Amino acid sequence: MRLRILATGLALLLAAPLLGPALSARQTAEVSLIIANGIVITVDGSRRILNPGSVAINGTQIVAIDTPAAIRARYRSADTIDAAGKVVMPGLINTHTHAAMVMFRGLGNDLALMDWLTKYIFPAEAKTVSPEFVRVGTRLALLEMIQSGTTTYADMYYFEEEVARVTKAAGVRGVLGQTVIEFPAPDARTPADALKRTEAFAKEFAQDDLITPSIAPHAVYTLDAATLTATSDLAKRLNIPIQIHLAETAAEISQSQQRHKQRPVALLDSLKFWAPITIGAHGVWINPEEIALLKQRNVGISNNPESNMKLASGTAPVVAYRQAGVNVGLGTDGAASNNDLDMFEAMRQAAFQQKLVTMDPRVISAPEALELATIGGARVLGQQTRIGSLETGKRADVIIVGMSRARQTPMFDPVSQVVYVSRGDDVETTIVNGKVLMRDRKVLTLDEAGVLREARAAADLVRKAVQ
Amino acid sequence: MRLRILATGLALLLAAPLLGPALSARQTAEVSLIIANGIVITVDGSRRILNPGSVAINGTQIVAIDTPAAIRARYRSADTIDAAGKVVMPGLINTHTHAAMVMFRGLGNDLALMDWLTKYIFPAEAKTVSPEFVRVGTRLALLEMIQSGTTTYADMYYFEEEVARVTKAAGVRGVLGQTVIEFPAPDARTPADALKRTEAFAKEFAQDDLITPSIAPHAVYTLDAATLTATSDLAKRLNIPIQIHLAETAAEISQSQQRHKQRPVALLDSLKFWAPITIGAHGVWINPEEIALLKQRNVGISNNPESNMKLASGTAPVVAYRQAGVNVGLGTDGAASNNDLDMFEAMRQAAFQQKLVTMDPRVISAPEALELATIGGARVLGQQTRIGSLETGKRADVIIVGMSRARQTPMFDPVSQVVYVSRGDDVETTIVNGKVLMRDRKVLTLDEAGVLREARAAADLVRKAVQ
Repeated sequence: MRLRILATGLALLLAAPLLGPALSARQTAEVSLIIANGIVITVDGSRRILNPGSVAINGTQIVAIDTPAAIRARYRSADTIDAAGKVVMPGLINTHTHAAMVMFRGLGNDLALMDWLTKYIFPAEAKTVSPEFVRVGTRLALLEMIQSGTTTYADMYYFEEEVARVTKAAGVRGVLGQTVIEFPAPDARTPADALKRTEAFAKEFAQDDLITPSIAPHAVYTLDAATLTATSDLAKRLNIPIQIHLAETAAEISQSQQRHKQRPVALLDSLKFWAPITIGAHGVWINPEEIALLKQRNVGISNNPESNMKLASGTAPVVAYRQAGVNVGLGTDGAASNNDLDMFEAMRQAAFQQKLVTMDPRVISAPEALELATIGGARVLGQQTRIGSLETGKRADVIIVGMSRARQTPMFDPVSQVVYVSRGDDVETTIVNGKVLMRDRKVLTLDEAGVLREARAAADLVRKAVQ
Repeated sequence: MRLRILATGLALLLAAPLLGPALSARQTAEVSLIIANGIVITVDGSRRILNPGSVAINGTQIVAIDTPAAIRARYRSADTIDAAGKVVMPGLINTHTHAAMVMFRGLGNDLALMDWLTKYIFPAEAKTVSPEFVRVGTRLALLEMIQSGTTTYADMYYFEEEVARVTKAAGVRGVLGQTVIEFPAPDARTPADALKRTEAFAKEFAQDDLITPSIAPHAVYTLDAATLTATSDLAKRLNIPIQIHLAETAAEISQSQQRHKQRPVALLDSLKFWAPITIGAHGVWINPEEIALLKQRNVGISNNPESNMKLASGTAPVVAYRQAGVNVGLGTDGAASNNDLDMFEAMRQAAFQQKLVTMDPRVISAPEALELATIGGARVLGQQTRIGSLETGKRADVIIVGMSRARQTPMFDPVSQVVYVSRGDDVETTIVNGKVLMRDRKVLTLDEAGVLREARAAADLVRKAVQ
């Protein structure tokens, strides 16, 4: 006993020079990052806002959210970001895009959808889409996403293993869907080839902390019933999410009825298509019976207001979805039909479009729009226990948004400022999985000038393709 | 004779050191400013784009637009702005706003219109609006406008002589409408008082190069027929434009029918209300017969897509107006119902809203949206011979817009980039009447920090007013 006491005393004596200078350090825990003194919009279940508030992050996780004084009393860090006067909020979740299509941004606007696709997008894709082109385009998209506060995105494109590699390198979270389509695609001559690609891709990134592999059967008008079933079977076997364009346009409904003798939702239901996580992109032309069925089958919907307006596709019944308890998130769609990846605009447009169409200015309020872009999106992707809000134990996907510009002055309500007057460019710092990807507008995981230079060079291929 | 020749020879000899180094200077004209090497979008009658192009400005006017080489050959200037890779375009024209209402930005969003007005806006206005409050608010609005490339705006508010003074000091062009309303207003107990104010204001700023005084009878539901006629008579006598809220909401139509037994347009026509320049703000609930009448009476319409969506007012028949030859411009409306003054967003929203409602993605194309925000607005304000496009002889109201961000990459079509992916924040330089108001994002005619500080202080008055 005496020996143990002595040993303890000796240990304390030896430790003294370390503990000495900061007695309070004995009561605080060292964490990897503290975001201090911000206006913390948590988007948690009680819509808690701490003004001011601080967030303690350790490793990949949020370990505490509290008043600045309480965080100071409990945590210390070698790295503290002062967010005084700025909004600290969950990173935005883009539930539907085609990232590499930033390379076709603004190519042939203001055309009827089929003209646009057949004269511009399909020829451009046929002649340009290669692994290298996808890497260049996806890096450009990731740069834009990091700069505008998107921390998770759901992708649907080709060469998805390339998308996954550059996404992981950039430090962004992705649910990345390998496309399956009946036409010869840049990365697969047949749907069977695409299924093989999906399986290899899913195995390569199984258990990855950032990348969730996914399968993306394109739509019911570009796939036969057998292939739809095969994609669903593979998704269930590999336990990966399905992404599908669902009831985007009126034309899709009539094409589905001609080809399959059923509307899209009925067809997919009859095929027992739905996986544990299924993301229906757009969900515009959906009737009340279908809404009830989507709820029952736990299908999430990605609302893409800007694309739906720009392409004149229609308006998704977002208010009805929410009333029915269907999970709804927001997406930008590809930049070719938007024309950017700014989720702040998606929030604003979701609110505007729903207010206009319902003729009720109260629907999709600012807090609701913010939920759609954060926790709503997390639910659609099946990741609501990991991301989508600032809560202890969740992954540290956090953005800091400046609030000092003339157009943001004065501030009566921070959530209103986020949704109605802020843009991606106001995001100053972007953190994913506890790692700072952009700090004070400096992107740390991508070479900004290099990404832009490569994209401009690759754009020449596109110009030649549509000449 | 010999003496004269000798004198001339002597003069040439003395001048030689000056002329010597630049012989070409003898063939070029000195101008006050050259904008060189940009992507010049003129918005002229032939939609000419010079890529690259240069613009020579002398004093208040554009003196030439041509290739960089041609401008270099003909003009020199002590002040040249290099616009390589950037868009050079006409300044944007906001045809309807309530500038000082930036002070109520984000105050009580997402409410039914009457709740919002009666619970927030009217009480706040009653307790805060003073000459000083209007100066502070208008300066904040002007800062935001200069920063986002608006060079001309049409205002409707109180203490309009104060608005005019700070607008002139900031160097912005304005068509400034003194409000006439039947309720006691912050600056006039009765409509008769407001008419007197208007006359004094109009005389103070008659012949001003930047300020066009105007009268703003609020709407047909807030004025009786006699007062509407009195405002019209005054406008005609003083030869100033009329601005009026026109058919903004369905409620306005039914209120007009109850009060006046006529729809707004029919009532105003029966009163011979229209002046040579009349600006109808919103023009949402307008039928085809009314469109034909507005064309006949040369009434211009200010389309405010964001406000109309956010307040769920409806959709103005912009496509039908344009087909009928009615002049249409764009406006932001007050920031309280928008929530900013960014005319780039107004362009994008105008295109989106019309495509959605007509279900035709071809309508209000990017070039058409740009025209609405520039030459279209100039026509609505009756200033199409002075502003609204880059043409020789027009006033030099010019903006330079950066195009190098990730979200603007790649660029296939500069007009598409302006409308669909650019924002006010991309404007780097703003020039009005030949004077540089902002250069490389530094505002030169307002003290940015001071304007923001004063606005934040004044916001406390607003907070107290709505407690």
